Amino acid sequence: RKRVREMAPTYTMAGGKGPNSYSQHSTYQRALLEVAKEKISEAISTKLEINSASNRFNIADFGCSTGPNTFLAVQNIIDAVGQKYRKETQKNPDDNIEFQVLFNDHSNNDFNTLFQTLPPTKGYFVAGVPGSFFGRVLPRDSLHVGHCSYSLHWLSQIPKGIADPNSPAWNKDIHCTGFSEEVAEAYLDQFKIDMGSFLKARGEELVSGGLLFLLGSCVPDGVKMSETMKGMLLDHLGNCLNDVAKEGLINQEELDSFNFPIYPAHVAEFKSVIEDNGCFTIEAFEKISHANEEFPLDPEFLATSNKVTFGGVIESRFGKEAMERTNELYEKKCPEILPELANAKSGMQFFIMLRRN
Amino acid sequence: RKRVREMAPTYTMAGGKGPNSYSQHSTYQRALLEVAKEKISEAISTKLEINSASNRFNIADFGCSTGPNTFLAVQNIIDAVGQKYRKETQKNPDDNIEFQVLFNDHSNNDFNTLFQTLPPTKGYFVAGVPGSFFGRVLPRDSLHVGHCSYSLHWLSQIPKGIADPNSPAWNKDIHCTGFSEEVAEAYLDQFKIDMGSFLKARGEELVSGGLLFLLGSCVPDGVKMSETMKGMLLDHLGNCLNDVAKEGLINQEELDSFNFPIYPAHVAEFKSVIEDNGCFTIEAFEKISHANEEFPLDPEFLATSNKVTFGGVIESRFGKEAMERTNELYEKKCPEILPELANAKSGMQFFIMLRRN
Repeated sequence: RKRVREMAPTYTMAGGKGPNSYSQHSTYQRALLEVAKEKISEAISTKLEINSASNRFNIADFGCSTGPNTFLAVQNIIDAVGQKYRKETQKNPDDNIEFQVLFNDHSNNDFNTLFQTLPPTKGYFVAGVPGSFFGRVLPRDSLHVGHCSYSLHWLSQIPKGIADPNSPAWNKDIHCTGFSEEVAEAYLDQFKIDMGSFLKARGEELVSGGLLFLLGSCVPDGVKMSETMKGMLLDHLGNCLNDVAKEGLINQEELDSFNFPIYPAHVAEFKSVIEDNGCFTIEAFEKISHANEEFPLDPEFLATSNKVTFGGVIESRFGKEAMERTNELYEKKCPEILPELANAKSGMQFFIMLRRN
Repeated sequence: RKRVREMAPTYTMAGGKGPNSYSQHSTYQRALLEVAKEKISEAISTKLEINSASNRFNIADFGCSTGPNTFLAVQNIIDAVGQKYRKETQKNPDDNIEFQVLFNDHSNNDFNTLFQTLPPTKGYFVAGVPGSFFGRVLPRDSLHVGHCSYSLHWLSQIPKGIADPNSPAWNKDIHCTGFSEEVAEAYLDQFKIDMGSFLKARGEELVSGGLLFLLGSCVPDGVKMSETMKGMLLDHLGNCLNDVAKEGLINQEELDSFNFPIYPAHVAEFKSVIEDNGCFTIEAFEKISHANEEFPLDPEFLATSNKVTFGGVIESRFGKEAMERTNELYEKKCPEILPELANAKSGMQFFIMLRRN
């Protein structure tokens, strides 16, 4: 449990504002936001009930990181709510609604950077809300629209048994490839617990009729993670880590028990957890096309992308030298897997809209 | 204006957690909180109307810094509200009220430290609210109890004219000693603007019947700042800075235009701004006795206290070497002013309780 807590911030904080920082390399997530923008506007226009008696409207972004993507996401929601309000009431939303935006992430997220890079002309009140979104972070019935982008594939902890050589679920791979039934079950069990906790908490925080937008990566039913490009790239990373272990920079036993706490669920698994929760109506569960849907087949780009996303976790576990060497091999050996990548099965970028019953 | 913005965080952030940090040297402020504790409990017990229909209760600390004093202050308020609720409704507050605490300070306050040192067993939802409390930082009618301790003597900017050698209000001292009418007027004008803005904003944020507790230092009517111990110590600091300028480490002209943006108002001035605002009833405006009311007459203690409070501002303006030399002289020459300090007129620690009409 401690280890996972350490991993999360290493990921979220990757680099501040420099050239290798998360904020510079979050264009992939941003492209999804751009595509989702129209969908969110339309959903708010048709599905949100405006309570013209209340002048307060609260929006939360769960797993906001340090910006700037979160600022785009919440501004999009605010614009859509304003349009809807103007249309329904013939009144100017700027004079009548006060928006409060609640930026949520782990308490070790870099909120200082978030607060110091807020848009200067923002038309909303700001609050940073520290704490795991697998639990309650906001008062009951206080939220009108929630948003969560590219965060729900991170699990709260390493699934039971997969790091234990004596367990049937022991996973020598570094992620859930989909080829071992026991491993897949362990990951799925943890996903059900985490996603269930997430929905239970949001169900209590959202007002009746409130909307919850979820965006991110999942895997189409019937497809295994390692048949997709992202899965293949993780396998490639695993192979490079193994090479570095053979060179002696990483302890092989430690590596054999190392796993990333990430699980892009299958569509049916996602839907089933939402239905089990019972608080929400699924208004949309769509595959959306993504301008950057597949990464370019360029070893340098892929290596940089890998380093930004996973380098921090690897460094904190195995040290800086091992991380650098792994990344060197990652780029060098990348051409070998390009033909395989070119034939990968499609992953899926999901757009989910839930309505609180 | 830029300079002031730079000064504020230098002050608020003095040192993180180390031995010379604000959090280690905020015992003076904490002693006031301890004394105020009973008064706040009693005020909540007698003056707060509990709305048993609502399960939400919001508390804000304006100028919270990085803790831990703010955690004590808000817990005290929560305990008092809980007691009142239990007494009036015979119900358990833990099962019925959800508290949200809004920690407000400048956006360059170290919120990361605040969030990472939150009490582990806190019974409230946390939100960090970045922004100047001279403007609105919370939605209208969203706050039940506000608290502000030892922050209201900081002005939002250097008063007009006092840094300008061509102005009649030019102040060669580093603070408002009280001996120049023009300088005192300039400081008072800025205080009226700032305190007026503070009250206007809180008036909009607080619900009708909500309480606002203000604590800090002011000066009794008829007493000049430089007749009090705190004023004398600032004059002593000014003299040491002058000595360092003569030694060549500080530019004399720059020093002559240097002023701290602080103004502990007189009682009548404070009351007059509150009355001019018109949104609040003054339920209490008291001098409260303070366990550390006057500093101990110990040069080493006084020098450390000075360094923690003003060292950051001096360093950012005149450099580290000048700051260190100033502090050395401050301690060395301190014995010369001890007899004067022993005869200082009393300052005043105020406890103000305002009730939103």
